[in-house]
Amino acid sequence: MVRRSSVNKAKTAEEPTIRQLDWQLPYNPYPFTTILSDDQIEAIHQASLTILEDIGIHFLLEEARDIIKAAGGETKKGDDLVKFDRGLVMEAIAHTPSQFTVHARNPKHNIKIGGRHMAYALVGSPPNVSDIEKGRRRGNVQDYCDLLKLGQYFNCCHIIGGYPVEPIDLAPSIRHLEALRHMTVLSDKTFHAYSLGRERILDGLEIARIVRNLDWETFKTQPSLFSIINTSSPLRIDRPMLQGIIEMSKASQVLVITPFTLSGAMAPVTIAGALAQQNAEALAGIAFTQLVNKGAPVIYGGFTSNVDMRTGAPAFGTPEYAKAAIAGGQLARRYNIPYRTSNVNASNAPDAQAAWESMMSLWPALTSGGHMIKHALGWIEGGLCASFEKIIMDVELLQMMMEFFKPLEINDESLALSAVRDVGPGGHFFGCDHTMQRYRNAFYEPLLADWNNFENWEDQGAKTATKRAHHLYKKALLDYKKPAMDQSVREELDDFVNRRVREGGVKEH
Amino acid sequence: MVRRSSVNKAKTAEEPTIRQLDWQLPYNPYPFTTILSDDQIEAIHQASLTILEDIGIHFLLEEARDIIKAAGGETKKGDDLVKFDRGLVMEAIAHTPSQFTVHARNPKHNIKIGGRHMAYALVGSPPNVSDIEKGRRRGNVQDYCDLLKLGQYFNCCHIIGGYPVEPIDLAPSIRHLEALRHMTVLSDKTFHAYSLGRERILDGLEIARIVRNLDWETFKTQPSLFSIINTSSPLRIDRPMLQGIIEMSKASQVLVITPFTLSGAMAPVTIAGALAQQNAEALAGIAFTQLVNKGAPVIYGGFTSNVDMRTGAPAFGTPEYAKAAIAGGQLARRYNIPYRTSNVNASNAPDAQAAWESMMSLWPALTSGGHMIKHALGWIEGGLCASFEKIIMDVELLQMMMEFFKPLEINDESLALSAVRDVGPGGHFFGCDHTMQRYRNAFYEPLLADWNNFENWEDQGAKTATKRAHHLYKKALLDYKKPAMDQSVREELDDFVNRRVREGGVKEH
Repeated sequence: MVRRSSVNKAKTAEEPTIRQLDWQLPYNPYPFTTILSDDQIEAIHQASLTILEDIGIHFLLEEARDIIKAAGGETKKGDDLVKFDRGLVMEAIAHTPSQFTVHARNPKHNIKIGGRHMAYALVGSPPNVSDIEKGRRRGNVQDYCDLLKLGQYFNCCHIIGGYPVEPIDLAPSIRHLEALRHMTVLSDKTFHAYSLGRERILDGLEIARIVRNLDWETFKTQPSLFSIINTSSPLRIDRPMLQGIIEMSKASQVLVITPFTLSGAMAPVTIAGALAQQNAEALAGIAFTQLVNKGAPVIYGGFTSNVDMRTGAPAFGTPEYAKAAIAGGQLARRYNIPYRTSNVNASNAPDAQAAWESMMSLWPALTSGGHMIKHALGWIEGGLCASFEKIIMDVELLQMMMEFFKPLEINDESLALSAVRDVGPGGHFFGCDHTMQRYRNAFYEPLLADWNNFENWEDQGAKTATKRAHHLYKKALLDYKKPAMDQSVREELDDFVNRRVREGGVKEH
Repeated sequence: MVRRSSVNKAKTAEEPTIRQLDWQLPYNPYPFTTILSDDQIEAIHQASLTILEDIGIHFLLEEARDIIKAAGGETKKGDDLVKFDRGLVMEAIAHTPSQFTVHARNPKHNIKIGGRHMAYALVGSPPNVSDIEKGRRRGNVQDYCDLLKLGQYFNCCHIIGGYPVEPIDLAPSIRHLEALRHMTVLSDKTFHAYSLGRERILDGLEIARIVRNLDWETFKTQPSLFSIINTSSPLRIDRPMLQGIIEMSKASQVLVITPFTLSGAMAPVTIAGALAQQNAEALAGIAFTQLVNKGAPVIYGGFTSNVDMRTGAPAFGTPEYAKAAIAGGQLARRYNIPYRTSNVNASNAPDAQAAWESMMSLWPALTSGGHMIKHALGWIEGGLCASFEKIIMDVELLQMMMEFFKPLEINDESLALSAVRDVGPGGHFFGCDHTMQRYRNAFYEPLLADWNNFENWEDQGAKTATKRAHHLYKKALLDYKKPAMDQSVREELDDFVNRRVREGGVKEH
């Protein structure tokens, strides 16, 4: 039997105690999964353009409608409705970059969006948080910070994708200021600010600029901040989101236009129809980003899923979700625009259902060319809860997928004919040279899966994966180290946040 | 809110109480997943032929070696080693059928193997069985029969793939007789008999013939029985298995040649090397079936996974397994031979790990062109245990995949422009005509996933998926109905089994 100490190098007291893969940018070298023919994609594309041309979409901000009108869109005074003709949409979206780097305050944590790269984001925006010991509670600063620490700690988390739980104990007027301070201090990875009106997103941009330690002109040339734009489906983009698009695009920061097209509720009950509507809303939003600032980085968001028709409850990680996620990848590729999709489930607990629904999203999302995977770590309950144990489970799932995407090498060494010859019929490979030279890094080593035999597993307490995940998240919090930040940057950040808090934060509502 | 009574039609007291999909043959209409180029597949193919030509493989039965020698293979008197040249292998395997029907005693349960069809088999061969109430116990007739009933009850189970648990309380000499009687009486689906020597497989063939109610000549033209042939890797096929191949092939029944190539143990530590060895062993076995009887139905089995290099324990549902499963599909397609793969995991409990490792096998297995999915329902612990709860979990996973494989229709009706126009920006689709006409069958309705909101889920006992699965398997056992069997067939079956039991069953050892 071959023995190994750990997948990590020799440990010192300083080193982390949890095995995990090194920081890396996942890359998909395989043919992308497809479920629709080019003709079918074209039919969805044309249907979506017809929606924008004939039916139109509400832009609930006059300033936005004026920008669209100036570019040749059809608007009526006193009416929110905007109609885009095909040519205008296609001309506008042609300016989007197909690939870009997003800069973190720690350049080692820069990421690439587009091409065959993938980036995984921490859960964003749930109002509740849970672990199996203390149960479910409303979002709060303490849990918010602990979740951020896990996002920073685990190398497979590339993006802090919004508040991992809503810190409800912070007053709404200053929440974004305190929350973003915590986020940028506790983590040095790329991050997200909410487009909840002009003031908040301008604060988010200023914080991103400060922690990147750049002047405004340089900042505008280096995408460093994400903001998700959710449409208010069907066919509506509301005022705060439009203000977010305007300010983010002006600053050349990364917008993710994600229609909220739940089939059977806010979109047609047919997935094809929901996709046509998703595409219309996404193209409208993406076109608008380019009317504000040609070339601004933008991501095509797909979030189409279905509802439970008996209750109206949203469902995630369903067969319909899988199909929509793959079709979404095909649509985004048609426009050569990076694609955002998600790791989602509707389970009320970090249990087997959470695992299989997550895998039912992750496989399609990743193999179909998803570039930004939102909620990749920690989401349960259809987004109503962040789960500490689910974060650990997702680390395992994401790490497995990252390993899956490392292609097999096929050469004389790996085909191992000489090893097969040496070992011969009926022999074994445990101790042979070919094995000894490679066994340390031959296979993915899990952090959460338990491959003990039943007797050993039972002796160790017969712990389910969920219980083991509980233990591991606590261990990770102990191992967590706050990333370094220049004293001058920290002071500028504090000066800005403190001043804005003193001013009372956001006035607008 | 739209309400529906159930996915099933109006119920009567006679109808089952568990929602499940109707019996159907799953079909994959999408492009197959691939991870290797044609050149890489060719390199593995050539390496495997070199293994058979230069290194050779042990056939531990003189009768088998004589057959190979007669066909031009290289053998030495008194030595188990056989060498096949490339031409001999390729000529032999060219006779395999690429697609065939396997007949069940109930013709409604006939299945198709090959092409784009898939068939899912119940767990086979674990020595232990468990449920979360009574825990883990050794295989026994009572649990054996209950597992068979679940295999019969659930429509997504197409094949009874061996003993769902080893009924250890039956004496080894007569176990196969009593076990196959139970199997063929409690289920009317296609089934498997073990190639554990000539006597047992001949008994299995006779039982299959009897329950199909055919004479021998007709039986030989209608594949009706499966038998799995595991090689004793590396590069060895043992005596009882070879006797199985000979008798099954003579009778034109379905052999599944599955090398047991655990990378790092019985195969090289590189997945490429393990695949080359898998391919060599599979081709040798497949070629041999055709030397016995040209045109006999045979399936290419892939089971390559890795071991945990720290403990030597087999691991399943790993990234390495996923890659091997997909490459196996590509290899089988190269030869135009149907492909067997599996739904596997190494979890000691039917928990989240069992779910994610299963999905880590199922997605690659099904999307890469797997035709026969062994252990599709109920396997845990790397095959050492059958789990009642895992069967229910797998029904959900398999049903979801079956729905995933139903392609989106893209046409004017499904693109739903008129519904989008009618509902308009800011409206909702719940009550619109387009929804009302379609909501009943619009989406997959789960049997195990719980999409209640958290409060309702908590009110109903906060049951995890595993606990709900426990409840459902018991319900299914209550709902189970024994399939009809002609009295004359039953008598012939009993006469045969009783006679063979009286004779003492199997003499050989």
